[in-house]
Amino acid sequence: MNKERITNVLSRLENADAVLVSDPMAIRYLCGEMIYPGERFLGLLLKHGQDPVLFLNILFPMQEIEGLKIVSYADGDDLNELLSPYISKDEVLGIDKTFQARFLLPMQKYGLAKDYVDGSLAVDKTRAVKEKEELELLRRSSQINDAAMAEFKKLIHEGVSEKQIASKCLDIYKRLGADGFSFSPIVAFGKNSANPHHMPDDTILQEGDAVLFDVGCTYRGYCSDMTRTFFYKKAPEGKRKEVYELVRKANEEATEKVKAGVRLCDIDKTARDIIIEGGYGRFFTHRLGHFIGLEDHEYGDVSAAFKDLCEIGNVFSIEPGIYDPDSLGCRIEDLVVVTEEGCEVLNSYPHDIEIIC
Amino acid sequence: MNKERITNVLSRLENADAVLVSDPMAIRYLCGEMIYPGERFLGLLLKHGQDPVLFLNILFPMQEIEGLKIVSYADGDDLNELLSPYISKDEVLGIDKTFQARFLLPMQKYGLAKDYVDGSLAVDKTRAVKEKEELELLRRSSQINDAAMAEFKKLIHEGVSEKQIASKCLDIYKRLGADGFSFSPIVAFGKNSANPHHMPDDTILQEGDAVLFDVGCTYRGYCSDMTRTFFYKKAPEGKRKEVYELVRKANEEATEKVKAGVRLCDIDKTARDIIIEGGYGRFFTHRLGHFIGLEDHEYGDVSAAFKDLCEIGNVFSIEPGIYDPDSLGCRIEDLVVVTEEGCEVLNSYPHDIEIIC
Repeated sequence: MNKERITNVLSRLENADAVLVSDPMAIRYLCGEMIYPGERFLGLLLKHGQDPVLFLNILFPMQEIEGLKIVSYADGDDLNELLSPYISKDEVLGIDKTFQARFLLPMQKYGLAKDYVDGSLAVDKTRAVKEKEELELLRRSSQINDAAMAEFKKLIHEGVSEKQIASKCLDIYKRLGADGFSFSPIVAFGKNSANPHHMPDDTILQEGDAVLFDVGCTYRGYCSDMTRTFFYKKAPEGKRKEVYELVRKANEEATEKVKAGVRLCDIDKTARDIIIEGGYGRFFTHRLGHFIGLEDHEYGDVSAAFKDLCEIGNVFSIEPGIYDPDSLGCRIEDLVVVTEEGCEVLNSYPHDIEIIC
Repeated sequence: MNKERITNVLSRLENADAVLVSDPMAIRYLCGEMIYPGERFLGLLLKHGQDPVLFLNILFPMQEIEGLKIVSYADGDDLNELLSPYISKDEVLGIDKTFQARFLLPMQKYGLAKDYVDGSLAVDKTRAVKEKEELELLRRSSQINDAAMAEFKKLIHEGVSEKQIASKCLDIYKRLGADGFSFSPIVAFGKNSANPHHMPDDTILQEGDAVLFDVGCTYRGYCSDMTRTFFYKKAPEGKRKEVYELVRKANEEATEKVKAGVRLCDIDKTARDIIIEGGYGRFFTHRLGHFIGLEDHEYGDVSAAFKDLCEIGNVFSIEPGIYDPDSLGCRIEDLVVVTEEGCEVLNSYPHDIEIIC
């Protein structure tokens, strides 16, 4: 159990008397144990002045953890009877954002607490500031990702399909020391690169194609995530070259902007203004970045709507893209860690135009 | 869009005026489109006498579907303003069991509907009765699984670890025509087979070990799931043989019992009584089976607590197990389809004791 993290969560809990965390990944973060409860209830109750309590089905036996009270239940037990000794009817109970209706509706009907509010922010904001040990794992995860990108590039050859390349990525990651994927890899040739959600299909590589890789692995649970756009046999010219250089500039100038105290929306604006001024604004259709850690997408955006300030230890992606179906779909993505003076870029794979022959 | 399925859901909706489905797999089942909305809201509203309405973030563009109204929204739009033209304040709104608190709490605060109830059963009970085309896909998925089991067996050899075997399963499935795993494969040697939740690790195979495979694939989205327990180099004797034969008998007699109109709890009882009478009752620690289809675990149990009657077209697992740490962990699992006269067993891989040399 991680007392410091739990203290941190409780100190951030402003809108409730207690918080009942159900997200397995948040519970892993706080207790050190990953439990997949399937359709069964799993909850970690955090409250000022009392030990954390974990409500756990007996089907998932767990070793004792010092300072953690485990309340076991069996299929068929009444959840409200289980919880009510620990939650007072005149308290406001925080639950997390993914808390399921199958548990919340009966709690509300029973009157377990006075009111129910979304208490996720307390956990999410704690998770958003990475500790030294977490940063080490994130660094290693991105180093593996850099090395993997160099290997993936070697899979590009005449007659290959996106699916064929994608099917080889997992073995490469594992050989390099990763646990597995942090998300299913995106490999997109030619026009497919102009769809930011494209999934690898049977498209065969053609001369002149852009080859976009958006890939990531996990290392001891921590995620990496990067994108590079290569070219097959022919260097991009004209508008295609312009698009690539704009995306690269947006990535690099936004990265320059990152620093503790800077608003996240202003980092998005730096990249977006460059692409708008270049005349491609309507083709940059998503936020500049997302926070990352134990999950590929964690709470925290680099977007116009997210006004929070960068804090030391925040880790997020910088991933501008232009998706112009008439010229090129291109994205360049790195992960960065916020520092006092600026940021540390976790990816070292170059941004230069690379022609694969 | 599948009008028949939607009509079926609405005819089963008893406790609400409308149901707002958020589960992506249920939406795929009803609309034919799989959308992964991540943290964004996705909802399909079904209501008597009006076309279904899909609420969809503009980030996930979708082709028009006849008879389906699509209401698009952007990040930052207010969900309640979006929904309120379609839901009346004096109606009871059904939501599904996995509906997230991040959406439900604001709806409740706004007063979108008069009350909110779990409307999952209407969808779940529709999904539980498989159509002819679904049965064809489930058959094919289990045929691939049978063929794969024969291949997995060949991976058993001196010095191999559980992880090494597990790492080869996906390629075998794909070669045989599957899309991928229906769940992460369980490969368990020796004592590990006595833990029904064991995940493959670095354990090396030893002479005399039981080798348990609990594996499944998907074929055009439909899941298979089967378990066999082999023995390495030495036939089980004494209590170990007794355990195997009891599990086999429990599987086969429970399967004999399956028929439209029989209570699911009575099928569980048939298997459980055999194991209890054999003296191993305390080592059969889980339900006899679960329903299956587009997901490996769907609504519907074969357990003491589940009193529903078998309906023609139900598909579920029959998977008795005995987990005795002092002798043997053993499970034998098949999928069955309920018919009027009995059942069709989807797996043909034999139940006999097999010694791998």
